[in-house]
Amino acid sequence: MNSDLPKVLHQIGAAPLAIHALRAASVLEPEKTVVVTGHGADQVEKVLTKHDDQLTFARQTEQNGTAHAVDQARHVLGDFEGDVVVLYGDTPFVSGDTLERMAEARATADVVVLGFDAADPGRYGRLITKGDTLEKIVEAKDASPEELAVTLCNSGVIMCDARTIFDLISRVGNDNASGEYYLTDIVGLARAGGMSAAAVTCDEAETLGINTRAELAAAEAAFQARMRADALENGVSLAQPETTYFAYDTVLGRDAVIGPNVVFGPDVTVESGAEIKAFCHLEGCHVSQGAVVGPFARLRPGAELEEGAKVGNFVEIKNATLAEGAKVNHLSYVGDAHVGAGANIGAGTITCNYDGVFKHRTTIGAGAFIGSNTLLIAPVDVGADAMTGSGTVVTEDVPDGDLALSRVRQTNKTGLARKLMQMLRAKKMKKDA
Amino acid sequence: MNSDLPKVLHQIGAAPLAIHALRAASVLEPEKTVVVTGHGADQVEKVLTKHDDQLTFARQTEQNGTAHAVDQARHVLGDFEGDVVVLYGDTPFVSGDTLERMAEARATADVVVLGFDAADPGRYGRLITKGDTLEKIVEAKDASPEELAVTLCNSGVIMCDARTIFDLISRVGNDNASGEYYLTDIVGLARAGGMSAAAVTCDEAETLGINTRAELAAAEAAFQARMRADALENGVSLAQPETTYFAYDTVLGRDAVIGPNVVFGPDVTVESGAEIKAFCHLEGCHVSQGAVVGPFARLRPGAELEEGAKVGNFVEIKNATLAEGAKVNHLSYVGDAHVGAGANIGAGTITCNYDGVFKHRTTIGAGAFIGSNTLLIAPVDVGADAMTGSGTVVTEDVPDGDLALSRVRQTNKTGLARKLMQMLRAKKMKKDA
Amino acid sequence: MNSDLPKVLHQIGAAPLAIHALRAASVLEPEKTVVVTGHGADQVEKVLTKHDDQLTFARQTEQNGTAHAVDQARHVLGDFEGDVVVLYGDTPFVSGDTLERMAEARATADVVVLGFDAADPGRYGRLITKGDTLEKIVEAKDASPEELAVTLCNSGVIMCDARTIFDLISRVGNDNASGEYYLTDIVGLARAGGMSAAAVTCDEAETLGINTRAELAAAEAAFQARMRADALENGVSLAQPETTYFAYDTVLGRDAVIGPNVVFGPDVTVESGAEIKAFCHLEGCHVSQGAVVGPFARLRPGAELEEGAKVGNFVEIKNATLAEGAKVNHLSYVGDAHVGAGANIGAGTITCNYDGVFKHRTTIGAGAFIGSNTLLIAPVDVGADAMTGSGTVVTEDVPDGDLALSRVRQTNKTGLARKLMQMLRAKKMKKDA
Repeated sequence: MNSDLPKVLHQIGAAPLAIHALRAASVLEPEKTVVVTGHGADQVEKVLTKHDDQLTFARQTEQNGTAHAVDQARHVLGDFEGDVVVLYGDTPFVSGDTLERMAEARATADVVVLGFDAADPGRYGRLITKGDTLEKIVEAKDASPEELAVTLCNSGVIMCDARTIFDLISRVGNDNASGEYYLTDIVGLARAGGMSAAAVTCDEAETLGINTRAELAAAEAAFQARMRADALENGVSLAQPETTYFAYDTVLGRDAVIGPNVVFGPDVTVESGAEIKAFCHLEGCHVSQGAVVGPFARLRPGAELEEGAKVGNFVEIKNATLAEGAKVNHLSYVGDAHVGAGANIGAGTITCNYDGVFKHRTTIGAGAFIGSNTLLIAPVDVGADAMTGSGTVVTEDVPDGDLALSRVRQTNKTGLARKLMQMLRAKKMKKDA
Repeated sequence: MNSDLPKVLHQIGAAPLAIHALRAASVLEPEKTVVVTGHGADQVEKVLTKHDDQLTFARQTEQNGTAHAVDQARHVLGDFEGDVVVLYGDTPFVSGDTLERMAEARATADVVVLGFDAADPGRYGRLITKGDTLEKIVEAKDASPEELAVTLCNSGVIMCDARTIFDLISRVGNDNASGEYYLTDIVGLARAGGMSAAAVTCDEAETLGINTRAELAAAEAAFQARMRADALENGVSLAQPETTYFAYDTVLGRDAVIGPNVVFGPDVTVESGAEIKAFCHLEGCHVSQGAVVGPFARLRPGAELEEGAKVGNFVEIKNATLAEGAKVNHLSYVGDAHVGAGANIGAGTITCNYDGVFKHRTTIGAGAFIGSNTLLIAPVDVGADAMTGSGTVVTEDVPDGDLALSRVRQTNKTGLARKLMQMLRAKKMKKDA
Repeated sequence: MNSDLPKVLHQIGAAPLAIHALRAASVLEPEKTVVVTGHGADQVEKVLTKHDDQLTFARQTEQNGTAHAVDQARHVLGDFEGDVVVLYGDTPFVSGDTLERMAEARATADVVVLGFDAADPGRYGRLITKGDTLEKIVEAKDASPEELAVTLCNSGVIMCDARTIFDLISRVGNDNASGEYYLTDIVGLARAGGMSAAAVTCDEAETLGINTRAELAAAEAAFQARMRADALENGVSLAQPETTYFAYDTVLGRDAVIGPNVVFGPDVTVESGAEIKAFCHLEGCHVSQGAVVGPFARLRPGAELEEGAKVGNFVEIKNATLAEGAKVNHLSYVGDAHVGAGANIGAGTITCNYDGVFKHRTTIGAGAFIGSNTLLIAPVDVGADAMTGSGTVVTEDVPDGDLALSRVRQTNKTGLARKLMQMLRAKKMKKDA
């Protein structure tokens, strides 16, 4: 990847590759999920834990092959008796459906291997089957011409009983060119020991592994295309689907309307009938029915727009609720706040939520009218139906129905503008001369 | 479409599908345009009327086929004697050119049908012609092998004399699988009655009907590609054409310069030699020669930029004129306003145009210099060559050449910043401990 | 091009076509670069000089062919004795590598011509070679069937000794259909005079000439695709490469992270490990390691972000340095300024740098805390660890550690908000009635 970032932390749809693999696995409702880390283990463990704090980690300190990697999970799984599925952190697209089909196949086979029909089988290992039975896996270099003609290839994903997998791994050798222990070898060992094996197949696209940034870009494009097609299928209005950027977990309701050039970061839900106009950036937020956002709006984590709320252009909302019908239409920053139902926040309003050390909250009551360029020095409460004059610096609470002002009377200095401008222009002429 | 929105209101290029069909028809300068509505009639009529208040509507309360649909227009057209053309609200791309060719073909044929050479004729009805004459239309299921080999297919678009069409429709039966009355049947009836028929052909792309959101997305992409190609052909500079989003009626002059990622909503004209930089959103506005907009600017309906006017980043202009050479370069909201020639509006300026109930106007004279963060409490007039100090709240008119101020003298509290910060940090350490 | 702009000034990657050709030539470290201008010479010379003030210009007042064009450089080159390479201002993609290979070929050939293997040779002149020797160039219309079968075609790019080229040009005639003097003819003249010639070949894409806006758009797309692939290859993280717009000279470090929809204008360097989030527009700026920009940020020429500096949403930075760890997170304009290390600039801050005639500078000390909506009336200095209250208009310097204020005490008018709103609503009801 030509990167200092561990490969499995590179992202697709705003989530590390490894998270995609873990999300697929979650459909099996695993009792325990063990991530075997190697290169950059500290960083990988830290980032993945942030996404899922139920993960257990095992470290592979030497890189001795895939069987060796899985073996690192042995002590973590202890005397666990259920099934184990082995996935790969750089293979993000194996689907939950596929894993469920593997689980079903386990009913009649001791070892289940995921295969795919390769467009260009090349150096992939071949799955040699007879009826439903997986006879063996043959490496391309060891394959007979008949075997080479087989296009069903090995993805590396394997499912079997925990005790069995570790028993078999114990017998895997490293008598090969690279001196590594290959997980694939357990199939031959299982068959030799009289166990049954089966192959489950999936689309080749699911087994795509990422090894370069160009492959990552292609995978991202494929992922986005899928998300867009799914959204259209689900009744979302995407004005220009190819310009919508989805995160892995974006949820858009039926008849949600999404304008051109909208970027979704993680953890966004847009309800049915809400509208996100062009050039918006959303993450960690919830937009309710009838709410309208943008263009040029940014919703940051904790932004909660209730029904019919409106966020307009050049507005940033962070960790703040806009109750039903509340409006922030222009050039404002609303952070760490609660804005009551139907309140109207004027252009240029800023919640001054940070004193250099602490963050403080602002509350604005229902029906309040905040004049343009009001500064709300948090912590502060503005009451229901209260008003602030344009340019007010609100340092103290405003009771319900009151009007807060901190204004200096305007004075007009007669002719002074013309005089000042003449002076400046004269100075410039002198300077330019 | 998996949508609560009636299909013909789904949009391409920021206009409902039905509007595209109506715009094509408008080249024929129709005396009357009747839209037959069915599903969601109220909503369809409301939206289409907003686009064109000359439309007449007829409702089809039961869905009994295309002939039945057209028949609903009978009473609206009354004893109208001219030609009628039948278009479809979900078939947005039939061109004005094509309709004109159909009108020409009417000179020698009683009924004119629009056909297209289908890449994959499949289940389309076939147009069986002899020379210039349209002999009959054969449904695919009823076609002989020779007829099936014909690739000239029926688009459903038909033109003929009003009296004729309704006479023929009266004779259409519904003795078919779905029990519907098909408009297509009038061709056979016309021929049987000794009338002449002719086929006019167009590109298959023109006859594209929209039935799913995926088809809508493909149609939108095709529409945008066409608009971009036309713009390039007409001498518009599109820095990155595939990122320009056109509305159906966008007008860009020769040598207009459009940066990457620009979105045009409806009703925008950009004159020759104007420049729209990256990340702009325009609708309902006019940008004159030599004007420069963006990046990150939003022009809303009623924005009028005269020659050489400039609108910079994070600026919103609504229902406001910027006269020749006026500048609003940074972070401002100018709404319901007239800004005089050569005036300079400082960063952070806001026209406070809304008092919670009414909207009010601001006028700024030619050559005025509005200091940063000026709030203009409308209704208010700032005179020519007047000036406002930074941070002024302008509540009263400023005469020509005057300088308006509402400033409080700055005081520096010695050492207080350091003391405050120390206190806050100490508090934090205590809290964290 | 259907344009008033001279063709060679149309842009790819934010640089005129001619600049691309000149940049390729620069790898040869030319002693002198002569640009022969014709159509729109004044404008071309002005624009190109802005990019490179070492250029010399020669004007071709009549358009008498390519040999005649080159001949205009004769007097400018005077008695220059080295090699000359002839490039074309509308052929932007000839690479420096290719020119270096041509220079190497000059060791054994008097005249070196650049050829390409044409997918569709059509009307191109054919390069007839024997081994390494270029025998002659045959125009398609004069070619024998054997010669027409040759796919090695003439790009028009020629390299030879200065004295030779002008000698040969003197002998070129215009006895042809268009009455023009063709540079290509010098190869035949050279061969006839006993000189040697050789062909160097390059990819056809390098020889692409631009003649229409559609071709320009295709060339831009090809250029962007190349820049994106190069960036990925070099270890840059492009979240969605197809949405990144590169300028011709964009430099992005390894593990720089670029979000969706980022536009780079000319002269941008982003260091390794810096992050540019979605919807940013950068030009003429430098972003250091660990700095984070956007989303929705604009960095204009002279913006210098030192390590770990942060620029947030709806922020414009122009001709200003943000020292290590300085932050401008929301809705601000910082121009003509120096912001000290670790300083925090609150939302809505504006450097009032323009008095209508002159620009002035603002300096903010390390560790300063600028409250929201502070206006800094430049020239002004805010000291280290100083603070300004929210809404302060800073007209005088603030010493280190001081707190500057210009605030009016807030007053709450009891019940006045409700009363005002009732009045306005009553007025509206009356009006609406």
